[in-house]
Amino acid sequence: MQNAAWLINEVRLALDEDIGSGDLSASLIPDNSTAQASIICRDKAVMCGQDWLNEVFRQLDPTITVDWQCNEGDEVCSDTVICRLCGNARTLLTGERSALNFLQTLMGTATITHRYVQELDAHGITKLLDTRKTLPGLRLAQKYAVRIGGGINHRIGLFDAILIKENHIMAAGSLEAAVMSAKAQYPNTFIEVEVETLKELQIALNLAVDRIMLDNFSIADIHQAVAITKGKIPLEASGNVRFENLFQLGQTGVDFISTGAITKHLHAIDLSMRFNMDTDRA
Amino acid sequence: MQNAAWLINEVRLALDEDIGSGDLSASLIPDNSTAQASIICRDKAVMCGQDWLNEVFRQLDPTITVDWQCNEGDEVCSDTVICRLCGNARTLLTGERSALNFLQTLMGTATITHRYVQELDAHGITKLLDTRKTLPGLRLAQKYAVRIGGGINHRIGLFDAILIKENHIMAAGSLEAAVMSAKAQYPNTFIEVEVETLKELQIALNLAVDRIMLDNFSIADIHQAVAITKGKIPLEASGNVRFENLFQLGQTGVDFISTGAITKHLHAIDLSMRFNMDTDRA
Amino acid sequence: MQNAAWLINEVRLALDEDIGSGDLSASLIPDNSTAQASIICRDKAVMCGQDWLNEVFRQLDPTITVDWQCNEGDEVCSDTVICRLCGNARTLLTGERSALNFLQTLMGTATITHRYVQELDAHGITKLLDTRKTLPGLRLAQKYAVRIGGGINHRIGLFDAILIKENHIMAAGSLEAAVMSAKAQYPNTFIEVEVETLKELQIALNLAVDRIMLDNFSIADIHQAVAITKGKIPLEASGNVRFENLFQLGQTGVDFISTGAITKHLHAIDLSMRFNMDTDRA
Amino acid sequence: MQNAAWLINEVRLALDEDIGSGDLSASLIPDNSTAQASIICRDKAVMCGQDWLNEVFRQLDPTITVDWQCNEGDEVCSDTVICRLCGNARTLLTGERSALNFLQTLMGTATITHRYVQELDAHGITKLLDTRKTLPGLRLAQKYAVRIGGGINHRIGLFDAILIKENHIMAAGSLEAAVMSAKAQYPNTFIEVEVETLKELQIALNLAVDRIMLDNFSIADIHQAVAITKGKIPLEASGNVRFENLFQLGQTGVDFISTGAITKHLHAIDLSMRFNMDTDRA
Amino acid sequence: MQNAAWLINEVRLALDEDIGSGDLSASLIPDNSTAQASIICRDKAVMCGQDWLNEVFRQLDPTITVDWQCNEGDEVCSDTVICRLCGNARTLLTGERSALNFLQTLMGTATITHRYVQELDAHGITKLLDTRKTLPGLRLAQKYAVRIGGGINHRIGLFDAILIKENHIMAAGSLEAAVMSAKAQYPNTFIEVEVETLKELQIALNLAVDRIMLDNFSIADIHQAVAITKGKIPLEASGNVRFENLFQLGQTGVDFISTGAITKHLHAIDLSMRFNMDTDRA
Amino acid sequence: MQNAAWLINEVRLALDEDIGSGDLSASLIPDNSTAQASIICRDKAVMCGQDWLNEVFRQLDPTITVDWQCNEGDEVCSDTVICRLCGNARTLLTGERSALNFLQTLMGTATITHRYVQELDAHGITKLLDTRKTLPGLRLAQKYAVRIGGGINHRIGLFDAILIKENHIMAAGSLEAAVMSAKAQYPNTFIEVEVETLKELQIALNLAVDRIMLDNFSIADIHQAVAITKGKIPLEASGNVRFENLFQLGQTGVDFISTGAITKHLHAIDLSMRFNMDTDRA
Repeated sequence: MQNAAWLINEVRLALDEDIGSGDLSASLIPDNSTAQASIICRDKAVMCGQDWLNEVFRQLDPTITVDWQCNEGDEVCSDTVICRLCGNARTLLTGERSALNFLQTLMGTATITHRYVQELDAHGITKLLDTRKTLPGLRLAQKYAVRIGGGINHRIGLFDAILIKENHIMAAGSLEAAVMSAKAQYPNTFIEVEVETLKELQIALNLAVDRIMLDNFSIADIHQAVAITKGKIPLEASGNVRFENLFQLGQTGVDFISTGAITKHLHAIDLSMRFNMDTDRA
Repeated sequence: MQNAAWLINEVRLALDEDIGSGDLSASLIPDNSTAQASIICRDKAVMCGQDWLNEVFRQLDPTITVDWQCNEGDEVCSDTVICRLCGNARTLLTGERSALNFLQTLMGTATITHRYVQELDAHGITKLLDTRKTLPGLRLAQKYAVRIGGGINHRIGLFDAILIKENHIMAAGSLEAAVMSAKAQYPNTFIEVEVETLKELQIALNLAVDRIMLDNFSIADIHQAVAITKGKIPLEASGNVRFENLFQLGQTGVDFISTGAITKHLHAIDLSMRFNMDTDRA
Repeated sequence: MQNAAWLINEVRLALDEDIGSGDLSASLIPDNSTAQASIICRDKAVMCGQDWLNEVFRQLDPTITVDWQCNEGDEVCSDTVICRLCGNARTLLTGERSALNFLQTLMGTATITHRYVQELDAHGITKLLDTRKTLPGLRLAQKYAVRIGGGINHRIGLFDAILIKENHIMAAGSLEAAVMSAKAQYPNTFIEVEVETLKELQIALNLAVDRIMLDNFSIADIHQAVAITKGKIPLEASGNVRFENLFQLGQTGVDFISTGAITKHLHAIDLSMRFNMDTDRA
Repeated sequence: MQNAAWLINEVRLALDEDIGSGDLSASLIPDNSTAQASIICRDKAVMCGQDWLNEVFRQLDPTITVDWQCNEGDEVCSDTVICRLCGNARTLLTGERSALNFLQTLMGTATITHRYVQELDAHGITKLLDTRKTLPGLRLAQKYAVRIGGGINHRIGLFDAILIKENHIMAAGSLEAAVMSAKAQYPNTFIEVEVETLKELQIALNLAVDRIMLDNFSIADIHQAVAITKGKIPLEASGNVRFENLFQLGQTGVDFISTGAITKHLHAIDLSMRFNMDTDRA
Repeated sequence: MQNAAWLINEVRLALDEDIGSGDLSASLIPDNSTAQASIICRDKAVMCGQDWLNEVFRQLDPTITVDWQCNEGDEVCSDTVICRLCGNARTLLTGERSALNFLQTLMGTATITHRYVQELDAHGITKLLDTRKTLPGLRLAQKYAVRIGGGINHRIGLFDAILIKENHIMAAGSLEAAVMSAKAQYPNTFIEVEVETLKELQIALNLAVDRIMLDNFSIADIHQAVAITKGKIPLEASGNVRFENLFQLGQTGVDFISTGAITKHLHAIDLSMRFNMDTDRA
Repeated sequence: MQNAAWLINEVRLALDEDIGSGDLSASLIPDNSTAQASIICRDKAVMCGQDWLNEVFRQLDPTITVDWQCNEGDEVCSDTVICRLCGNARTLLTGERSALNFLQTLMGTATITHRYVQELDAHGITKLLDTRKTLPGLRLAQKYAVRIGGGINHRIGLFDAILIKENHIMAAGSLEAAVMSAKAQYPNTFIEVEVETLKELQIALNLAVDRIMLDNFSIADIHQAVAITKGKIPLEASGNVRFENLFQLGQTGVDFISTGAITKHLHAIDLSMRFNMDTDRA
């Protein structure tokens, strides 16, 4: 990941909150001991977050070697060794929890995304989008995990796309006025409008926007929306997206569905580190 | 929360990742419009995170008024207004998602903690501890949410208590040697040792440590450990703690159980913001 | 300007580089003296940067009062008082240069932008875009000044829009392949492609991109490009844009022209501060 | 440049404002492609800013190699290759604009300074000083560029020299009182006083200050000031310094002239990057 | 020292306050000269702070080589060469003062600690603790120096142990209530209570706390306290600890004494750097 | 103190190192209790550091009121109340140690400086200068304390004055060459040269430098140096300055003496905080 100044900062914060004034337990290990460690994934999961683990150990001690046993994005079976580490024993123990916390979180997001994407792929052409409902401070990391899981990123934040909602329309006087104002001010920016009824959809279809969000539409209304739109403008169904209704949503032929569930909830992947001190040194 | 420099920083990072170079959509709202907003909790949940929402709007615009409808730690019924806000309409919309992301996350952690604590309370005297398995960058915030939910914090990080595990024992030569080294170096520090068998427990009981962790003991072995220990040293059961076996764990009379599940997984609370522009201004 | 964390930081850096370990000359002024100051604009210019001056004095001493004599974006005649300040005399002198440096720079950018925009408006419908050729560290401030001057911002950076150039096309194998890859990965992102010949334009017109950049086209070729395109996709002329050929460019009917000249060069506006110590205090 | 912590920070900010959450277009380039790039200077200019370009690529990817074709401070003919780069293709494209923005700005300042210095050298012994009228956030960088262009730095900021102006004199009661106070408080600090008339100059000449600034003196008055002073104290002419009157100013024999024009205005040097992907990799 | 992010930051701040906008004198040395330097300790002292000197030169120029002539913690005779450095002459001179300031401060703290510890060792079994009375910004560095000098760290700050004093007791209603509240909220935290009389000691002995602080007890009362306590709970004598009464304090058999004197006062060690320019380069 | 961004940062670091993840003991105090506190100075001392205490409590809780009983720079008798505070009881206890650590350190430096200055004043006209031998991270704070104690600041760091020493002379070839190079490059900068013999002084007197440092001169040689110099250039005696020989040094009539002793050693002033909880609240 190029110039990830934000990733370096994320790791720095995580190490600081765990280590703070110093790892007291580490002093029980001779400071020149070396060790081997393996990280084992206990669940079936999508590998995600290798750059974070690399960065954890780079910040602690650049002489630690990290040997990945799989590629970022790979589907990993349960009870698989995903990574081998080698180096100073104290440092390996000091960094263990921070490294695993990143992996278990990002693999959790990538894995649930992957499940949603597979379910959608099996039943239609609809693509899965994420939202801005993310864990505070981990927006970019989770957006990355969504991509690794096969999902597509909706806007990263308030700065890279415009979503015109009810309040903006009310303030502008009409949907037309709101869209025109947005296009005039930000002609290089992706503009999406949110509609709540098929009637509003008809209005939106006459405005050259980049996508229309069908907010809390029933499955039946989504079907009708797709029929009306005829591919003229991409449609995104949002609201009440659950794993259980992905089949039905996919069948509507809507271009995109978006859901906060893949990033606001988290089922962490179960990981553990097996650790062997080099006996001749310890 | 006193001098929470870390809380101020957490909010700053969250706003930065969402707003970045600027909220483009906000420009569709007249910059002097005012509005009223209510935050509604859609789930039954424990209120947690009021200082974070307060700080979000303090950083964006200190003239926004925030009127909480419940106290931190209250159990909130579903579909309850928990907070009313009033002030500049653009700012309310700009801060909405960051504020809700903090609340949904922290209320999620407080609520699951509360459920575990209630289940334990109903069946025994065992107390619930958290772990260092947390969301990267949110350690202190989640530790706080655990307290709000009625749980008790285990060590915050590597810096405020010593946990002697298998590797430390191996490196030191024996459990006795490891404990003695820790006590000599850090006589003001809480020292806990991890044991994997009842035999190891017997050894640990002869050392004046502050707590003994029973690592992955069966329910039967925990019963026996409690019987052997006779309250001499507090015991903590760790490993395989699930909501489903809390009843059984509580029945053993073990002093503490600890589980990563309450902080590494997250079921975000469902919140929404209802927004009304002041019509005479907009 | 909402939540301008970046603006606060910019001002902090500017004060730090000027004041450093302390303003030595200020110690010659009694520390409880007060003064009145006026900022006078010596050139005809567009007012820009009021939030920066406000922030300079807010950081130095929040009791300084600032009374603007014009609105942001106003055209100001030469030798006009644009601002009156009142408060601690030392602080006014300490902040003077940092405040004026921000104003002279941002007003310079807003003023030249305004001249370009007026020239274009007089001769056609073409809109003026800026570029990423900006003063290091002042990107967002200059983008703001361009808007105040009547220009329109092109992408802010590499993160909020895609511009497909020759190298991307070569790497992807063809323009079609590059566009398809971009659309698949970033379906919410504005995509522009750069073409160097009319032939390439023909190809680009068949791909649903958001804008086409005509790179270094002659005036004659821009005329032809507009004729071929028939408004199907917005066109942007780039390269060799000078104040002297804006008339001709505007006559072509091209939708946008973009130029680095308004932000990479700078003709600072001439400002001075007139200062009167309150005689009863000094 | 020794310990340039400030330079590292400047580059970090510039990369952050351009790359932010990530370079979207870079994803169109295979992530293991390599390329060659050349930076070409289109104008006659003074080379300045090599450390900034080096630092841009060091921060992005330390394996990029940079091969300078000229030395810092060299006069470069138009259409000269000044630098060759080699390495990861994505990274070269990601860093291009930030690197060029630094070079075009610093070379612009060095080049105009060099022109002023040459003009002065041709006509007298007068030395050229800069001022504190600089681009916010780029004070130290521009001060460096002035030195590279052959100019001499006036004080860096308010912290490293004292300039006693009208307001300080008024506050202290007299010029003598102001100078005495400054010398007593800061006996290691360079002290300069500003005079507005020949009469004031006479007074200043009797005080042991380090330099006297002739503020807005006519050419005739500068001649007379030099005659009166007889080299006793160095003189600096300030105000109304333009390239056009450098000849006349140089003829007066005044020791220094200072002008904000070389740092507050900017004529960026025209640079471009020629880029060749390594065909066997792309 | 593992992951000492705080150490890196301390060095960064020290270099910044000394070098700021640049080392002016360094420009008098040819920028490619190299030199040899030796650091000589003029006093008998305990070596402490090698990581700080290493970090000073690592930040300035990683090619400087540092060759320590003794180990951290060694007792060094007066007029001993403790370190040899080799590399760029400018950089060695630029970093000299910052490096020596760290060494003279940390060696000062380690050396006085060592003297106290030796005096105590000679007369009893009492251990020496430090306090939170430290130099602002240097808490962790001084705590480290105390350990190097043979002392033991009391709590690092307010976050890693609880000390219940008079005010906490008053607020809680009784010592029992305060201890119970502390134990319930923080069952993993070391809890110490402060008593001011033997009567209060009797009460405290009945509560299972981790240590009791005898605040300003006379030597006679400390003797009695030790007799009463019979090793049941460790005792710490605090207040009026001076080098002159260490003998008497040690004779009481109290477990710990704590004193702010070793960290709040400082007698810097006398160090100098001998410098030889490489003649063939200079 | 104007715009003391560095002071704000110093206080932030001190609070962070003491409070870290939170003040555990504070939780024993009801969070709405209020209290009165007095800070008592146990030693005869010079008041110094009021802005630091103010800033400590401003950062923790701006509603705390601080009522100073003396002015900065006053000489305070032992056992004097110097400050009364009022507000939230927890916050007063949380901030106590950080506030006192600043005061005891800065008052220590101001007080020793004051003693030196008084001794010098009694015996001559010589002024006292500090050096760059300071506590790492506290340079500006200590330089301020020296001024409060009546001393005069030598250069703040390497950036605001030039001191030409033996190595610079060797590198430049001669003292003349070194001075000429310094004056040409930095004509606004105070230049001092160090001489080690009377012969070198003779050479230095012929160069127009701003001050000459007599390095490790005997008292007899200082007398002679003053006689030779006849006030032509200010002289500074450095090396072997002790409180005991200030009388003799003052008698020589040398303009300045400089000593690291006042800032590298520290005898902290003894301060304590008396604390009364408001009984109706606690």
